[in-house]
Amino acid sequence: MASSLDESVFASSAVDVISRCRTLAAYSEVAGETTRLFLAPSVRKVHEAVTAWMAAAGMAVSVDAAGNIRGLFGAEDAPRLVIASHLDTVPNAGAFDGILGVMMGIAVVEHAAPSGLAIEVIGFSEEEGVRFRKPFLGSMALVGELEEHLGLADASGVTVREALIGFGLDPGRLAEARMAAGTMGYLEFHIEQGPVLESLDLPIAVVSALVGQTRMEFRFTGHANHAGTTPMHLRRDALAAAAEWVVAVERTARETEGLVATVGKIAALPGAVNVVPGVVTVSLDVRHASDAVRATAVVGLVAAAEAAGASRGVTVEHAVTMEQKAVALDDRLTDLLRVAAARLGVETATLTSGAGHDAMVVAPHVASAMLFLRSPGGISHHPDEDVRVEDVETGLAVGVEFVRGLAAS
Amino acid sequence: MASSLDESVFASSAVDVISRCRTLAAYSEVAGETTRLFLAPSVRKVHEAVTAWMAAAGMAVSVDAAGNIRGLFGAEDAPRLVIASHLDTVPNAGAFDGILGVMMGIAVVEHAAPSGLAIEVIGFSEEEGVRFRKPFLGSMALVGELEEHLGLADASGVTVREALIGFGLDPGRLAEARMAAGTMGYLEFHIEQGPVLESLDLPIAVVSALVGQTRMEFRFTGHANHAGTTPMHLRRDALAAAAEWVVAVERTARETEGLVATVGKIAALPGAVNVVPGVVTVSLDVRHASDAVRATAVVGLVAAAEAAGASRGVTVEHAVTMEQKAVALDDRLTDLLRVAAARLGVETATLTSGAGHDAMVVAPHVASAMLFLRSPGGISHHPDEDVRVEDVETGLAVGVEFVRGLAAS
Repeated sequence: MASSLDESVFASSAVDVISRCRTLAAYSEVAGETTRLFLAPSVRKVHEAVTAWMAAAGMAVSVDAAGNIRGLFGAEDAPRLVIASHLDTVPNAGAFDGILGVMMGIAVVEHAAPSGLAIEVIGFSEEEGVRFRKPFLGSMALVGELEEHLGLADASGVTVREALIGFGLDPGRLAEARMAAGTMGYLEFHIEQGPVLESLDLPIAVVSALVGQTRMEFRFTGHANHAGTTPMHLRRDALAAAAEWVVAVERTARETEGLVATVGKIAALPGAVNVVPGVVTVSLDVRHASDAVRATAVVGLVAAAEAAGASRGVTVEHAVTMEQKAVALDDRLTDLLRVAAARLGVETATLTSGAGHDAMVVAPHVASAMLFLRSPGGISHHPDEDVRVEDVETGLAVGVEFVRGLAAS
Repeated sequence: MASSLDESVFASSAVDVISRCRTLAAYSEVAGETTRLFLAPSVRKVHEAVTAWMAAAGMAVSVDAAGNIRGLFGAEDAPRLVIASHLDTVPNAGAFDGILGVMMGIAVVEHAAPSGLAIEVIGFSEEEGVRFRKPFLGSMALVGELEEHLGLADASGVTVREALIGFGLDPGRLAEARMAAGTMGYLEFHIEQGPVLESLDLPIAVVSALVGQTRMEFRFTGHANHAGTTPMHLRRDALAAAAEWVVAVERTARETEGLVATVGKIAALPGAVNVVPGVVTVSLDVRHASDAVRATAVVGLVAAAEAAGASRGVTVEHAVTMEQKAVALDDRLTDLLRVAAARLGVETATLTSGAGHDAMVVAPHVASAMLFLRSPGGISHHPDEDVRVEDVETGLAVGVEFVRGLAAS
């Protein structure tokens, strides 16, 4: 095949991609940091810049009724590949989470001019869930799911509907934001947001699935007692019970291939140095690419909590606060990514995504694939979030090779 | 001997003692609860009532320069036994912590008229340490240690000196508040404030020692990471390390006779359900009647913290925030209490006190003993704090028998 990493045809594009991400990072609601929520004023500057880059790459540019910016390269009625990610950020964000995927989409178009295949690059207006405590608002518009959330209100009481209208958009035209009928594939580039590629010393990973997730709250209730006057055998120490369970959570995850389980929040009441804790609340976050494995782990962890409590006269209540099924990506597109990388002599890892991405929303509706780029230090959602220029170069080359392979298939 | 539980000579006195405690509980800074800090306005009503009861029992009553109310029964220059406890309370307190010991002192005087032995009953003005975050201010005046704390300020910036003057007392006369030269013993009745006597089904306990105490803070520092994208083997989970250690704290205390060790406070940062905790701070409270046993336990727990951290790439810092040596009570007086109980056919336990009491301050200066009364439900520092009338009766009988034994010895 024509393209090759050796020729470094993507080197200057990779520099441009990073430069464009950093340019957009300056468009923020907060001076000196990158904070750009759904439909914030700074989004207009983002759209202006993205429009210019898309147009220069030969795309027809529009903003849909959900505020997603969309550039179409190729014929309206041609079979279409969507390359997309999001342009909103968390508060005090880095420059690459989401943004990189959009900029790489544009760069892929700049290099690939596939015959018979249209490419639509989309910059989603919302993915992080910060403003309305509901993520994926942008990509939901592509699959007809945004309408049901128009009544959601932000912290100021402004609804999604009002926010769209306030930005000059028409919620009545959301139906036009749906994916074109001829869309046959979806590709998302994204930074890994984790340390695995760095630990493997690899630039990119093909994503096989987005993990399912269970979030729970546990409440251990024992009895608060004086730390000096209550001998050990007469205690009902809620923290000792919870602590034994936290260790069991870690052990269970370590012993289960691919499982991650986290206790991120803990509170002990009354919370005094000289009082045995009577009540402890903890959170649990369990993720796995297999819903069955995750369900089994959750059952085991509930039993472990009850056992840790029972041996101390501590009762345990628990509640599921969030449950999200795993989403498998498309085998054929995923294989095409692997083949593209192999042709270029690029070694790839296969990872599951432990974080949610727009691909989760789109994948149930159209064949979808994701490519992760190494995250230096595993850092994301932080100003130090970064990406290596040579990894962007590799990702671009694989993306262009993928598009050619898809067009030829 | 003359007195006997069968005769129930103490039955009506026990009812009076409890009734007097409840009367004083109504003198409070907060309507509907018992909150009476050092030198609060409500203390004047307490002094008025206590003065009347002391005077009726034949005592000469005065308030010393530290605000302690003191009633002397017998000759100024006779060998003197002090029976004392405190009259201040924690916020929203029960009726008996401290107060009971003073009321029992008065009741003992009502029944015992020892020849050749004077009894001084003292109601200390301060023990709980609430107002000036420094406990034992009242009893420190007896041993000449209050002077060094006159500059301490409360939350409003008022110093101990100013508070004394504001109450109409003269800090310049603190030297006169010292124990009389002829004082040869100190006895303190106190509720157990713990569940041991109830669990043993016994009314009273002779206290052998007040435990020493170490308070520490531990800080576990790992790395905050995304709970979804960070596989278990790449985590540095500060909470998992801290939890393993909390379990080790419990195990160490269970395996060491007489040791209590408590983790009462815990905080995990950043404290989000989907973030691996990067920093966890915890408190440690370790108590034992042997300073050597306590020191050994602390060394072991520091090592356990470091081991729990080291296996996870988590560093551990620790600092001692409080250290207090154990105080042994006087063998002879303690034996006299046991003998008194045995004569009356009362079975007693021997306990160490896990909480601090005024006896801790006095014991290094004069032979001291303590008698605990069963705490129903182990409850104290709470409006539900209680004492059984039959236990007060038993405690009074043993106290009177003790005084007679002491006078005869």
